[in-house]
Amino acid sequence: MAHKNIRDALSSFEQFEDKEWEKVAPLIEIKTFDKGEFYIQPGQYCQDIAFIEEGLFNYYYMIEGVKHIRQFFFYNNFMSNYPSFLSFQKSKSYIQALEDSRITTISRNNLHKLYNSSMVWQSLGRKMAERMYLTISEKHDSFLLDSPEDRFLKLYSERPKVLMNVPQHMIASFIGVTPEALSRIKKRLFNK
Amino acid sequence: MAHKNIRDALSSFEQFEDKEWEKVAPLIEIKTFDKGEFYIQPGQYCQDIAFIEEGLFNYYYMIEGVKHIRQFFFYNNFMSNYPSFLSFQKSKSYIQALEDSRITTISRNNLHKLYNSSMVWQSLGRKMAERMYLTISEKHDSFLLDSPEDRFLKLYSERPKVLMNVPQHMIASFIGVTPEALSRIKKRLFNK
Repeated sequence: MAHKNIRDALSSFEQFEDKEWEKVAPLIEIKTFDKGEFYIQPGQYCQDIAFIEEGLFNYYYMIEGVKHIRQFFFYNNFMSNYPSFLSFQKSKSYIQALEDSRITTISRNNLHKLYNSSMVWQSLGRKMAERMYLTISEKHDSFLLDSPEDRFLKLYSERPKVLMNVPQHMIASFIGVTPEALSRIKKRLFNK
Repeated sequence: MAHKNIRDALSSFEQFEDKEWEKVAPLIEIKTFDKGEFYIQPGQYCQDIAFIEEGLFNYYYMIEGVKHIRQFFFYNNFMSNYPSFLSFQKSKSYIQALEDSRITTISRNNLHKLYNSSMVWQSLGRKMAERMYLTISEKHDSFLLDSPEDRFLKLYSERPKVLMNVPQHMIASFIGVTPEALSRIKKRLFNK
């Protein structure tokens, strides 16, 4: 079946019938990125939502020469500069391929065509927005409520793929510590 | 017209006809809170979304005895512990009335009845989730990208009501500085 992965991912939000799924194929597009290429950079407008078929991206800010990682996007997951996409404002961040990658995209216009075509797509759009809200809200809370060690352990239990695929300095940035502090945390946890 | 304020607020997301609006009245409930009373506390489950008819609330965490303010909720705005509401998990935070207040609430079940009753409610639910996402995402970005002075100026231009209605130590907590640092910021900006 064409686009099986994206259909499976969407089915985690909402069950839909073949006739709903058939609307999708004419509205989507495949794009490829070489390692190091940018999906979006500051000042650009994000006009689409992507699904990663293959590869890995990271979503980061540069602040006074320091990279602050907001999120990693893995294969079989959706990706967007969602703040820019929703607000029609310029991106403040980078999304960059960390490996050679292949994505399926849908433009804002085409996504809105789907939303307006039936209840099931409207409901799916709502559930995706709610899931995105929970992700960023949990990250916000985690920076307030958890120690760096707690944040590392959360990543370790919930997103083991991140730890296996991403260089240590990026993991340090994601949990908000220096690479040296991350080394100390790992030593405390694993070399007892 | 009954519930004019809430209808006006919902109309900013989506236009809907009288026949859609008539579904709402049997599904909502009025509640009152005395100053100091809690809408939700840590460990409780948030089961509804509220609209503030009158009054003011703040949404905060207590971390090692220190209050960290995430958000203020003013009259004519929606209010919820949205992370708890969406995830069916216990609240990690407090929402407390800062004045005597009156709210209209809708339970999760009744809200889902509305969503499932027509496209217009599904679409409205999506747009509300998107707006909530943008609010928390902007706060997240602002803590990374802006100086405390920038955050104060943003509040000053976008949410002047906060500055007029809320004690200074709460404003300091909201922008992430000590009350003394907030005094210095205001002195620099206004007493030149």
